[in-house]
Amino acid sequence: MAKTPITVAYGDGIGPEIMSATLRVLEAAGAELDIETVEIGEKVYKRGVDTGMDPGAWDSLRRTRVFLKAPITTPQGGGYKSLNVTMRKALNLYANVRPTIAYSPFVETKHPTMDLVIIRENEEDLYAGIEHRQTNQVYQCLKLITQPGSERVIRYAFDYARANGRKKVTCFVKDNIMKLTDGLFHKVFDQIAAEYPDLQHETLIVDIGAARLANTPERFDVVVMPNLYGDILSDVTAEISGSVGLAPSANIGDGFAMFEAIHGSAPDIAGQNVANPSGLLLASVMMLVHIGQASVAERVHQAWLRTIEDGVHTRDIFREGVSSQQVGTTEFADAVIARL
Amino acid sequence: MAKTPITVAYGDGIGPEIMSATLRVLEAAGAELDIETVEIGEKVYKRGVDTGMDPGAWDSLRRTRVFLKAPITTPQGGGYKSLNVTMRKALNLYANVRPTIAYSPFVETKHPTMDLVIIRENEEDLYAGIEHRQTNQVYQCLKLITQPGSERVIRYAFDYARANGRKKVTCFVKDNIMKLTDGLFHKVFDQIAAEYPDLQHETLIVDIGAARLANTPERFDVVVMPNLYGDILSDVTAEISGSVGLAPSANIGDGFAMFEAIHGSAPDIAGQNVANPSGLLLASVMMLVHIGQASVAERVHQAWLRTIEDGVHTRDIFREGVSSQQVGTTEFADAVIARL
Ligand SMILES: CC(C)[C@H](C(=O)O)[C@@H](O)C(=O)O
Ligand SMILES: CC(C)[C@H](C(=O)O)[C@@H](O)C(=O)O
Repeated sequence: MAKTPITVAYGDGIGPEIMSATLRVLEAAGAELDIETVEIGEKVYKRGVDTGMDPGAWDSLRRTRVFLKAPITTPQGGGYKSLNVTMRKALNLYANVRPTIAYSPFVETKHPTMDLVIIRENEEDLYAGIEHRQTNQVYQCLKLITQPGSERVIRYAFDYARANGRKKVTCFVKDNIMKLTDGLFHKVFDQIAAEYPDLQHETLIVDIGAARLANTPERFDVVVMPNLYGDILSDVTAEISGSVGLAPSANIGDGFAMFEAIHGSAPDIAGQNVANPSGLLLASVMMLVHIGQASVAERVHQAWLRTIEDGVHTRDIFREGVSSQQVGTTEFADAVIARL
Repeated sequence: MAKTPITVAYGDGIGPEIMSATLRVLEAAGAELDIETVEIGEKVYKRGVDTGMDPGAWDSLRRTRVFLKAPITTPQGGGYKSLNVTMRKALNLYANVRPTIAYSPFVETKHPTMDLVIIRENEEDLYAGIEHRQTNQVYQCLKLITQPGSERVIRYAFDYARANGRKKVTCFVKDNIMKLTDGLFHKVFDQIAAEYPDLQHETLIVDIGAARLANTPERFDVVVMPNLYGDILSDVTAEISGSVGLAPSANIGDGFAMFEAIHGSAPDIAGQNVANPSGLLLASVMMLVHIGQASVAERVHQAWLRTIEDGVHTRDIFREGVSSQQVGTTEFADAVIARL
């Protein structure tokens, strides 16, 4: 098999540890990858690049079109732009796919049967970056919703549901208040739903939708929503499924794709070999499927599952009193490799 | 004791049933109220009043300054303004106080020790009502955050915490993205927190904050946040504490106050004597405290608690297999009255 070129960034904080662990597993599993390593994040920001992206990183992405990215740290203080948001917009990564699955009883959760995917619009909404000062006491930020932006992510959600054997697509909006913006998202959802008669669909106001998602997540399947709701609610579903530390994310566009854990760079525990590499590892599984190496993806996923099922856990997931073993980042990767 | 004048609206859907139940309890408890009943909601909208508020309702409020309000139904279709949002802005009800407490084991919840209060900014944010069409494919809504608007709700939260023996105030913002608007809310929070050295304070990014709130709500005490986050997350906390059907809400301003359940008018179950009056009844308890009838408030609250503890429940809360009794709206009110 020809090697697939991908761009890899080790990021900041716990980034380097979890990326090393992930790449060791991928190599041992026989992933055919031609890895270009680039520099992003804190060091690049501090060199004065306001997006945190080294120019070389853009060059690499233009070649590979696939980015496996560790979390980064944005320095405190003004003038820095979010690297994630920059990437999503620059590469038109319009769909942010965030599956959350409970691995009960191996990972503690109050929602043992939950298995859902949030598909978050990834470029518009309050993330459009249009914010300004009116007076020194009055600030405004613009929420932007467009017809084409809504259409492509909603269509992606229905196509994803069909391709993955999912049965229902739910839409969350607040169109009793935002009648034009969220109203447009709702209207486009209804139009596209009509093209997929094999799938069920429903729309909920985001407040009661969020309440049900947090209380009875097992009732949901695929849920599509504007950017900010998706940001907040995908952290909610990840945490109640067991831990934000386990949740992967795929940022998908027509020409590019970026894969990452949903958690941050956790500088407080960096360099201690305690971080959980699972979020990034599961993101790399999504990446392998995306680049056509589905059987390697399956091998990695199964080995990871067996590791968890054998009670091998990093500190964040470990529980006293259950037959289990607490290990470090490196040893966790070794345990996955031993089960490939 | 002189009677306190209050304005009451029976609303739509289940509104009339739960309001009758609530007022019967208040009367039996010896609340000294001079009730002015006004018409709001569906019928008023259909008479062409775009806010759903009868002119007589405004007159009454100008006299009483206290509003006990049942849920209403906003008719489908364009041209109608949210009555709730209209009231909050017209009466400057800047703080929306939403306590959520678990009543375990009497009400089923996965979070038996949670006891927190969300204080939601109630006039600004995306609720400012500034929304427009750029082209037929591009819509925008303005998120507005002001220094005075942030200051008064945050100060209210700290004063509330102090007055109610609470220990910690947490702030939720997304100022890694909305550096100006949410950044201002965060900055004002830090400034005001410094004036309350007896209280702990912390700020969390709303995504991870929401995740923790949904997974480990028992860690939170008072949580203050901009309007839309508060809308979504107060439904989340209410639902995971047992049911949105139990949650009250107080909308507080310097000159006026409005008390209501957080749930809607549920037209699908209207007129069947099955609705749970608890949300509105507990809102009326908050109202009694507000108008200086704290001992009546305490009597009502204790009788309600004993009712729940005796296993008397409306359909939404009733569970098979626990020693309990399923009753209708009217009978639930009777059970509370019997325990006054
Ligand atoms: C780091 C931050 C800009 C980002 C976001 O808000 O989208 C993160 O929370 C996420 O969910 O990927
Ligand atoms: C009915 C609606 C306008 C209202 C809101 O969004 O504030 C409701 O959800 C609430 O929380 O009181």
